[in-house]
Amino acid sequence: MTDKPCRASEKQYLYSPGPTDVPPYVLQALGSPITHHRSPVFSEYLAEVWDDLKYVYQTKQDVYMILSSATGAMEASVSNLLSPGDEAIVIRGGKFGERWGDICTAYGVKAICIDVEWGQVASPEQLAETLKANPKVKAVYSTLSETSTGVCFDIEGYAKVVRDTSAVLVCDATSGIGATPLLTDEWGVDVVVSAGHKALMIPPGLAFISVSDKAWKLAESSTCPKYYLNLKAYKKNYEKQTTPYTPAVNLVMGVRESLKAFRAEGYDRVMKRHQILGKAGRAAAAALGLEVFPKRPFDGLTALKVPEGIDGGAVTKKFRVDYGMTIAGGQDHLKGKIFRISHMGYSDKMDVPFAMSVTEMVLKELGYSLELGKGVAAAQQVILDEWKTLGA
Amino acid sequence: MTDKPCRASEKQYLYSPGPTDVPPYVLQALGSPITHHRSPVFSEYLAEVWDDLKYVYQTKQDVYMILSSATGAMEASVSNLLSPGDEAIVIRGGKFGERWGDICTAYGVKAICIDVEWGQVASPEQLAETLKANPKVKAVYSTLSETSTGVCFDIEGYAKVVRDTSAVLVCDATSGIGATPLLTDEWGVDVVVSAGHKALMIPPGLAFISVSDKAWKLAESSTCPKYYLNLKAYKKNYEKQTTPYTPAVNLVMGVRESLKAFRAEGYDRVMKRHQILGKAGRAAAAALGLEVFPKRPFDGLTALKVPEGIDGGAVTKKFRVDYGMTIAGGQDHLKGKIFRISHMGYSDKMDVPFAMSVTEMVLKELGYSLELGKGVAAAQQVILDEWKTLGA
Repeated sequence: MTDKPCRASEKQYLYSPGPTDVPPYVLQALGSPITHHRSPVFSEYLAEVWDDLKYVYQTKQDVYMILSSATGAMEASVSNLLSPGDEAIVIRGGKFGERWGDICTAYGVKAICIDVEWGQVASPEQLAETLKANPKVKAVYSTLSETSTGVCFDIEGYAKVVRDTSAVLVCDATSGIGATPLLTDEWGVDVVVSAGHKALMIPPGLAFISVSDKAWKLAESSTCPKYYLNLKAYKKNYEKQTTPYTPAVNLVMGVRESLKAFRAEGYDRVMKRHQILGKAGRAAAAALGLEVFPKRPFDGLTALKVPEGIDGGAVTKKFRVDYGMTIAGGQDHLKGKIFRISHMGYSDKMDVPFAMSVTEMVLKELGYSLELGKGVAAAQQVILDEWKTLGA
Repeated sequence: MTDKPCRASEKQYLYSPGPTDVPPYVLQALGSPITHHRSPVFSEYLAEVWDDLKYVYQTKQDVYMILSSATGAMEASVSNLLSPGDEAIVIRGGKFGERWGDICTAYGVKAICIDVEWGQVASPEQLAETLKANPKVKAVYSTLSETSTGVCFDIEGYAKVVRDTSAVLVCDATSGIGATPLLTDEWGVDVVVSAGHKALMIPPGLAFISVSDKAWKLAESSTCPKYYLNLKAYKKNYEKQTTPYTPAVNLVMGVRESLKAFRAEGYDRVMKRHQILGKAGRAAAAALGLEVFPKRPFDGLTALKVPEGIDGGAVTKKFRVDYGMTIAGGQDHLKGKIFRISHMGYSDKMDVPFAMSVTEMVLKELGYSLELGKGVAAAQQVILDEWKTLGA
């Protein structure tokens, strides 16, 4: 639902990269009568959610839940680990990488930035060199999938570089978690920040954060002021199966359902499903002569360049106004230059062919020369060939 | 819903002072399909909510919405107004007053505390003396209704004292707003912090904050670090009818319904309704020989002393386990000494007689000597006499 319908038959479709579409069984859970947050049964619900979060994170560490947008959890991983005057490396190649830099600056942390062009990635070698040149660096801030560009950064590669140094690796996995592999413990990612309203299939409102022993040790010397986002309070209450402040109880009821569903499907199948969806989106783009924007594409998102001569603002508007479909355009200097179609989280086999059929009609109407159905066919073929590999 | 029902017929009742019970029309709105937060229609929803918040706040100032518990908005009113080394007065007489002091300390602000015994109030004269003795004080932190004790502080009186000084008055109205009068502009309260999950009838997750021109002026010189809770970002985005970070869209759909209902009932009727409910609760207590704990009771809550010889922990447990009713006990050093029954927000004429009937049965079973029905009758009489004054 993105615009008030003028006619009874109007349908609305949400294919934006956050908030993403939420399954009906989660929507129903959101409307549950209120459970008191200090009641024994709510602690049981929390325990279930926390256990499932560990599964999604692929970690044995605690995963704390913060009532905030993902930005709150990002801030917590600066203000809890570092002190004014500390040095940190920030890998920037999009809007959310830049946010890491802004948060460091707000706390008086010196951000040493590895800047890559939006849509490109930084290599583990670049990180290794920068770390070597700046031995006082205490933390490296990175992004799993940079939602603004559709790039998937090489977190596994960064972890290999960072884990043998005294620095910790912090990863913003807000849109990536649950859609592309992030093996927190196996790779050795010290802090993983995420949120529920991307691939975890709930409405916005819950952020999550895991903290390794190495990061907790660093936190001991942090002098940045903090209160609501003080992770020590979350840890202390986590151990008592509760939260330091009143949690969003209805969103907890929602995420309890979505994580149960995630677990029932199984980590490997969810990852493989997203790989197929990503491949289908890129196959459709190729068939239509459209250029994929990111160099190393995140499988939860098809981010495409607006074809030469087409008004980018008109693309997203036409999707929304004429077809009831909400997708995303480009942000900041990419405004009007790319458009982004999400297939993360609650996304099934027909989502990409369907979104591509709208894409074809929108672009054709805006004057782009294409053969209707050609992109759809390419996506269909990928689904026909590969969906069966997921098993039952 | 507070415990998993063992039998199909088991009913659950929520009379805790936050989260409070949520009306069915709000629960339904929570389950609405996701609206994208940057869509034109969502901006329209926000405009409606913001307009209704001004009505609830009785202010012409902007009221910003923060995705956090009330504590986040409390922290914002310290970190945005003050700087390390600044002096502030904190009026403390309960758990939430103490939180103001803790937040000030976290930010290096010197808290000059006016401490009153829990359940008591500080007079405007005490505040005037303390302000006079500490002319460098930049802000006074106060609480409208101290949920932990059931006290309603004299914010109107404090405002009279503060408004002719250079200091600003900040009020935590989390449980008070929408249940007891707080005339933000008329009284001259500079910053009012609140949340949706008390008298505003939505599940936890949204906090609100208004900021006067005088407070904005103070904010200009603040040097405390902040990012997610930086109110300047909220103000800038408010003017564009949006939010700086992804908002909790489903909770916004909920509060849109609850505030519409609040406005339809009308400010004066809602206030008067709570006055009658508070009076009914106190009448029942008197009839049963129970002592009201707070000196200046908040009408949204009946906070009673646990009778001599009765185990306070057993009281709240028996309410929950034997009657399916969640109320609250005492916090910190009041644990086991008081119990608190809420009638704020979604509370109607029969709520107090009903809660009192459970109170009688619980206390009788625990050995307190009382005549069944006597407290209920006293509450009924208040309702019979006064409800009609509310009009249709």
